[in-house]
Amino acid sequence: GNDAYIQQGADAIRTRQNLVKSLLAQRKWPELGWDEMSIELLLSDLAQMDSNNFPANIGAGEREARVYSDLVARRHFRMAHGIGRSGDIAAIQPKAAGSSLIMKLVNIMCLDVIRLAGVHAANACIALPLATGMAMVMTLLTLAQTRPPSARKVLWLRIDQKSCIKAITACGFEVVVVDNAIEGDEVRTDLSALQHQVNTVGKDNILCIVSTTSCFAPRCPDRIVEIAKICATESIPHVINNAYGIQSSKITALIQDAHKAGRVDAFVQSSDKNLMVPVGGALVAGHDRAFIKRIGEMYPGRASAAPSVDIFITLLSMGQQGFRSLLKQRKVVFEQLRAKLGAFAVSQGERLLETPHNPISLAITLSTFGSDATRLGSFLFTRCVSGTRVVAADRAAATTSVGPVSLSNFGAHHSAYHGAYLTAAAAIGMTEQEVDALIDRLTAAFKDLRAAMNQP
Amino acid sequence: GNDAYIQQGADAIRTRQNLVKSLLAQRKWPELGWDEMSIELLLSDLAQMDSNNFPANIGAGEREARVYSDLVARRHFRMAHGIGRSGDIAAIQPKAAGSSLIMKLVNIMCLDVIRLAGVHAANACIALPLATGMAMVMTLLTLAQTRPPSARKVLWLRIDQKSCIKAITACGFEVVVVDNAIEGDEVRTDLSALQHQVNTVGKDNILCIVSTTSCFAPRCPDRIVEIAKICATESIPHVINNAYGIQSSKITALIQDAHKAGRVDAFVQSSDKNLMVPVGGALVAGHDRAFIKRIGEMYPGRASAAPSVDIFITLLSMGQQGFRSLLKQRKVVFEQLRAKLGAFAVSQGERLLETPHNPISLAITLSTFGSDATRLGSFLFTRCVSGTRVVAADRAAATTSVGPVSLSNFGAHHSAYHGAYLTAAAAIGMTEQEVDALIDRLTAAFKDLRAAMNQP
Amino acid sequence: GNDAYIQQGADAIRTRQNLVKSLLAQRKWPELGWDEMSIELLLSDLAQMDSNNFPANIGAGEREARVYSDLVARRHFRMAHGIGRSGDIAAIQPKAAGSSLIMKLVNIMCLDVIRLAGVHAANACIALPLATGMAMVMTLLTLAQTRPPSARKVLWLRIDQKSCIKAITACGFEVVVVDNAIEGDEVRTDLSALQHQVNTVGKDNILCIVSTTSCFAPRCPDRIVEIAKICATESIPHVINNAYGIQSSKITALIQDAHKAGRVDAFVQSSDKNLMVPVGGALVAGHDRAFIKRIGEMYPGRASAAPSVDIFITLLSMGQQGFRSLLKQRKVVFEQLRAKLGAFAVSQGERLLETPHNPISLAITLSTFGSDATRLGSFLFTRCVSGTRVVAADRAAATTSVGPVSLSNFGAHHSAYHGAYLTAAAAIGMTEQEVDALIDRLTAAFKDLRAAMNQP
Amino acid sequence: GNDAYIQQGADAIRTRQNLVKSLLAQRKWPELGWDEMSIELLLSDLAQMDSNNFPANIGAGEREARVYSDLVARRHFRMAHGIGRSGDIAAIQPKAAGSSLIMKLVNIMCLDVIRLAGVHAANACIALPLATGMAMVMTLLTLAQTRPPSARKVLWLRIDQKSCIKAITACGFEVVVVDNAIEGDEVRTDLSALQHQVNTVGKDNILCIVSTTSCFAPRCPDRIVEIAKICATESIPHVINNAYGIQSSKITALIQDAHKAGRVDAFVQSSDKNLMVPVGGALVAGHDRAFIKRIGEMYPGRASAAPSVDIFITLLSMGQQGFRSLLKQRKVVFEQLRAKLGAFAVSQGERLLETPHNPISLAITLSTFGSDATRLGSFLFTRCVSGTRVVAADRAAATTSVGPVSLSNFGAHHSAYHGAYLTAAAAIGMTEQEVDALIDRLTAAFKDLRAAMNQP
Repeated sequence: GNDAYIQQGADAIRTRQNLVKSLLAQRKWPELGWDEMSIELLLSDLAQMDSNNFPANIGAGEREARVYSDLVARRHFRMAHGIGRSGDIAAIQPKAAGSSLIMKLVNIMCLDVIRLAGVHAANACIALPLATGMAMVMTLLTLAQTRPPSARKVLWLRIDQKSCIKAITACGFEVVVVDNAIEGDEVRTDLSALQHQVNTVGKDNILCIVSTTSCFAPRCPDRIVEIAKICATESIPHVINNAYGIQSSKITALIQDAHKAGRVDAFVQSSDKNLMVPVGGALVAGHDRAFIKRIGEMYPGRASAAPSVDIFITLLSMGQQGFRSLLKQRKVVFEQLRAKLGAFAVSQGERLLETPHNPISLAITLSTFGSDATRLGSFLFTRCVSGTRVVAADRAAATTSVGPVSLSNFGAHHSAYHGAYLTAAAAIGMTEQEVDALIDRLTAAFKDLRAAMNQP
Repeated sequence: GNDAYIQQGADAIRTRQNLVKSLLAQRKWPELGWDEMSIELLLSDLAQMDSNNFPANIGAGEREARVYSDLVARRHFRMAHGIGRSGDIAAIQPKAAGSSLIMKLVNIMCLDVIRLAGVHAANACIALPLATGMAMVMTLLTLAQTRPPSARKVLWLRIDQKSCIKAITACGFEVVVVDNAIEGDEVRTDLSALQHQVNTVGKDNILCIVSTTSCFAPRCPDRIVEIAKICATESIPHVINNAYGIQSSKITALIQDAHKAGRVDAFVQSSDKNLMVPVGGALVAGHDRAFIKRIGEMYPGRASAAPSVDIFITLLSMGQQGFRSLLKQRKVVFEQLRAKLGAFAVSQGERLLETPHNPISLAITLSTFGSDATRLGSFLFTRCVSGTRVVAADRAAATTSVGPVSLSNFGAHHSAYHGAYLTAAAAIGMTEQEVDALIDRLTAAFKDLRAAMNQP
Repeated sequence: GNDAYIQQGADAIRTRQNLVKSLLAQRKWPELGWDEMSIELLLSDLAQMDSNNFPANIGAGEREARVYSDLVARRHFRMAHGIGRSGDIAAIQPKAAGSSLIMKLVNIMCLDVIRLAGVHAANACIALPLATGMAMVMTLLTLAQTRPPSARKVLWLRIDQKSCIKAITACGFEVVVVDNAIEGDEVRTDLSALQHQVNTVGKDNILCIVSTTSCFAPRCPDRIVEIAKICATESIPHVINNAYGIQSSKITALIQDAHKAGRVDAFVQSSDKNLMVPVGGALVAGHDRAFIKRIGEMYPGRASAAPSVDIFITLLSMGQQGFRSLLKQRKVVFEQLRAKLGAFAVSQGERLLETPHNPISLAITLSTFGSDATRLGSFLFTRCVSGTRVVAADRAAATTSVGPVSLSNFGAHHSAYHGAYLTAAAAIGMTEQEVDALIDRLTAAFKDLRAAMNQP
Repeated sequence: GNDAYIQQGADAIRTRQNLVKSLLAQRKWPELGWDEMSIELLLSDLAQMDSNNFPANIGAGEREARVYSDLVARRHFRMAHGIGRSGDIAAIQPKAAGSSLIMKLVNIMCLDVIRLAGVHAANACIALPLATGMAMVMTLLTLAQTRPPSARKVLWLRIDQKSCIKAITACGFEVVVVDNAIEGDEVRTDLSALQHQVNTVGKDNILCIVSTTSCFAPRCPDRIVEIAKICATESIPHVINNAYGIQSSKITALIQDAHKAGRVDAFVQSSDKNLMVPVGGALVAGHDRAFIKRIGEMYPGRASAAPSVDIFITLLSMGQQGFRSLLKQRKVVFEQLRAKLGAFAVSQGERLLETPHNPISLAITLSTFGSDATRLGSFLFTRCVSGTRVVAADRAAATTSVGPVSLSNFGAHHSAYHGAYLTAAAAIGMTEQEVDALIDRLTAAFKDLRAAMNQP
């Protein structure tokens, strides 16, 4: 009778407790996603392990995680001590065993993410509570400790996005721009230009080479296998900015190959762009456990636990299975985008740029608009299309400064790229319905612009 | 009849809307705290302004704030774009007008906090989504851009806490330790030692002087007025680590005076330690608007909005009135702690160290325990007392390394401090009941230790 | 620049406000479901209209909706005044204009539900914060006010479920059982038995006839069209217990036809069983606006708003479109269940009972288990199968009492039904995967039972 | 090191688990209130025991607690099965062991509430998910089952509030009004009128006597001790409407005395008015365990768990200690209200009515306003004062109908009460600040009204 029902209920509690025990024991990313109830129970258990939630705690220090607003306390599941210690962002906090366990599990599961995505050569990963740019800063500053004092120049393969340049210059290092080559429609790494700069600058003056894998078409992922070989030969560190490359198996295969073929010290990726969490975290991964550990040890003081907790919840919620199916879906949606965008371009007297090496971003020409092409942006903006970019035709004469770095024809990744274009990406989480809606709005925006052009 | 009731309800909605309008119009920290309902309504309104929450949004970029877990989305009030742009952490994000408004308002209200607390000389404040250590890194790196390339040494007034040393060395700068003087029971700035180091190192080789205001007794806040004078005279930048000093009017008065008397480039404080939010943010404030602005412009890329949102909620919830009463309460509780801790010490054959210059932390001697004093820590730990620190007697022979810096008798702020002691602090939010409970547990822990010492 | 972004954000706010305005203006169930953010915003707006949330409210009465626990306040979106007034559950509360609006909108949208489901003859609907049994009590007590004092007997078409009998006897009325007929495998209304009872009891002694539409196979929905005709002819009220019949278009078509052909005073349905909300509400609907209104006016005092708020959220979240697709899905899943359960039965040497008139519930024989059939229940229980029912073979000799009513062979709806059987239903929200899992577990449980039977 | 921290965290989890174990083992209202975290953990554990949350559950019934909206599921902590079974509102549900446990614990703790408040004679209590009016309906219908069929009249001691009359008439019973006596300023039970009605109606025709304890001044709690004696002598059941009387020790002492001196079958109180939860529940308590149990068994079908869950959370949150201090505070605030309202009245040329027998509500005369007194209401309404009531001078000529019952001078509890007055109550949770604000607004409203009266 009643006892049997209560027993069955107790069994259900035990089933969930076993899920938790298994996570803590096996310390790996679960194959199957957890339901929200199970995740909340785990967070509650962990929160109870933080001293500010001890029923009997008395705090006589300067940092006791007293939280004024209950709304704030609740949104952090009552964990308030952040992560890290003064000496190491990856250290266990005595006052916050629960928060610390989350941080440890996140680092472990993030390595599982990196490997599942295809970079089996990775042996360590740290989830920093910093977005990609700042994660790059920490990586460069850590590298600098291993290099001669003269090594203050960073060879940077041009990609027209400001945050990487700023990361380098913020550290006080000098950016040496390595220009790209145009190959057909694609903008790609110019390996001979790179080798030339290595020779010119001199390896003792080079902190590292920074390459990029994820980028807007028609720029393509850098030739990182060949770059890794140069780095190995020349004994120059190599850092890959892989901002949103985890979501593409083509890109992760490149990174894996680069590790096999040559030198990669670290590759850095955004948690929000790959794992569908809010902005705020980055994963720094690499082959050399000691180097990745040192990045954590460089971190002065504590940090917000929020990015780690977001990743924690999300990875538990997805499970490996969920992530795999997101990766698969993205690939399908990318092909749909390519097909539909191509057909749309043709219908408009334009064409899809041929960029077979870029597996995430696509571009179509804007040749029929002349100098009005740049006006397309605002027509898309008012139709609530975000993320597309309009790049105007060759503006080699115009120069954009990012700190001390000057780049002509900024936005096109090359000072002399031919013609205006519009980019669009198929990022993780995009659906086929969104592709269709995008095409509809592009159609409308093109029409709007042509109408506007016809007006006196 | 019914119309009147509905009218009255509509009036209530309007009252809250006016609260919001007034905040957005006046852009200052409200005098009176808001209730949670009003805060949630404002957050909802702002969240709706972020493009990922537009009913009609289509995202075709690489970062579209798609959030996988609804639990994660909810805890961030559905804001996911973080703060900042690639070029500037304080810039408005096109995709996230609501998040950007929060960030702007937080910076404005944080300056109000700084001024309310007593530093009227401050003209600008930026809330960084980084804890104090990393905020110090950003401040030093920004300073470096204004200094000659030779200026790579930081004169650091010894305070035995690791994260500031790590901040300096993480940037690749060299720490020059300036030893303290012992004056009675107090450990204080040795101004002549400082002047000596300035002369020895040479000002062109000095990036800046880093002083500290909030610290554990018996170390006292640095003599920042005199230091500011030296900095002015010598044209050396001056950064104050004011980690938890906002909560003490004595300390903020010192900072105000230092601005009047000499040079202060920036002072850095923790949001969690002063504003009762979870770990993760810091306020960098200063007299020179342009310099503080440049710190934001140095920040490469975006960052988590979580620390800003926590501050936003908390400051609205407190109002100026609530913060003032917290400051007042802390002062009262500090006096209670001083009186009760002193009486307790006497009852145990010990005494309160005389540290009149430290307005937050206190210390009592542990002279009756000999070398067993250090065991006290674990007795307090098991009784759930956190935040107290036991510092053993003179260990000048022993040396602790923090990166490249070696310090003898680490923990005591001086290589030759006399005798063991225990510290306790009265930080913001502490209550009189907690002081009483602390004394009870100290009594029990002392008894435990004496019993343990008597066992063979 | 920034202004355009903020303008776009403000537009997004306005879009959601228009959704709210349109709901309040049009007062009908939206065609498209709302997202959670929009629903929460509406609830916040409405909550602000309740006096306990007025920033300036002073309460000097005995009921001022002060809520002790913030957790409780939050889960009710800070609405605490409940619904109704002392005189009428459907009246506007002066202190709670927001809660009252929800209640009004719920009643309106519930009528839309009833009509969308197929009962166009319904002109009024009231959502009572009572489950079906108590809603039946309120309906019968209201009916009684219109009947002669002698009318204290209720002709009840036998259905073996306790709560309807209890509803009748709780009111102090007498249950007159009208036995069913067996037709093939089906248990159906015996119209001549009903007419006989009408004649025997005498219409002035009859409060009403209570028929039932949703039931476990092999009982089928009552012949309510014919019953309605008898009620019309004899001037006897007719109440239909339509507990979970809204989800079946066959049943709603019957109810619609009954209205056309004869007399139906009210039909009562559960909110949880049809609308996927927690237990606690019922919809009482009918043709006669005045009668339905009188039920609300009978309700003494206030009541919990929770069931109404759950319905409110759910109907907004579904939209008419979402509900339609749930109804469609249920029909498909029912056919799958029929096919798979039938095939399973055959594979086990059993058969599906032929019950074409029951569109929700199905049954298979348990003829191969003899008296062990009843043991099947516990084998299904331990395999976490809920909702199936095992009915043992003919137990005409055994009698079950429900208050003053005695029924032989209780559970089978007829004192002499042939053979044991197992029922299973395809209710709203069931998925094809659940059907498959059910068949798997049935297979395992049958195997378990056969193994157990073979053991000595 | 780390192990010790994790151990300490695990100890903290265990401390909370012990709290839960102790509650489930001891089954009594905890002396000390729980923090929100502990309450949420308990709710999570209990929710997991409900079958709809079993990870492996398959539902093939008609009621499987599938919840469409996640927002709805969350606000019910994912419990959806409601409480009760078809046969008994207090029965354990097989599908919902967790929800059932809550309901059991609530009934136990509510009896603790009744006793703590002072009615030690109570041996049983059931928390019904119905507000007071409907709880009265259930009580009367249950009583009717024990009385002769002729007993269909309820002797009702006049109190001018509609829901009790409606409860009686909704059941189909006849209300026999027993008029009150005026004694000084007070309106009190006229015992001889009561005895007269008992004699006139005849006890076999009387279902019960309904008395009331909590009411607006100048009506006072009924003389329930003497009424109980009459009921004992005459063998007539006695039901006390104690709507908000639990909060007054004077009233609970009366109820206790009534049990000792005579007959009380049940006393009914609101959960929202006494326990600071949202409207929706009532506690029916009494001396006779069997009778209270029968009320639960009368309840047909299931019901919303929301009112029980609200009580559960609130009682755990308060603890006995918290409730005791609320009772104490109310007494203090009542005395403040009496003093300040009295002084205010004198300052306005009015006076406090002398109503020493009413421990919750007070009244002041409105003799200086003549027939304009009734206009005061709207002036208070626009100043956001709720809960006060303005009763106009003698309107014996005017008659109000509540169903079949007609009462002259409705609102004054007596057809010939002298003069207009304004009532105000000091209910549980009211604070001294609210009293002060009330006096301020009264002052302003009086001024407004006098100004309005002086205008042509």
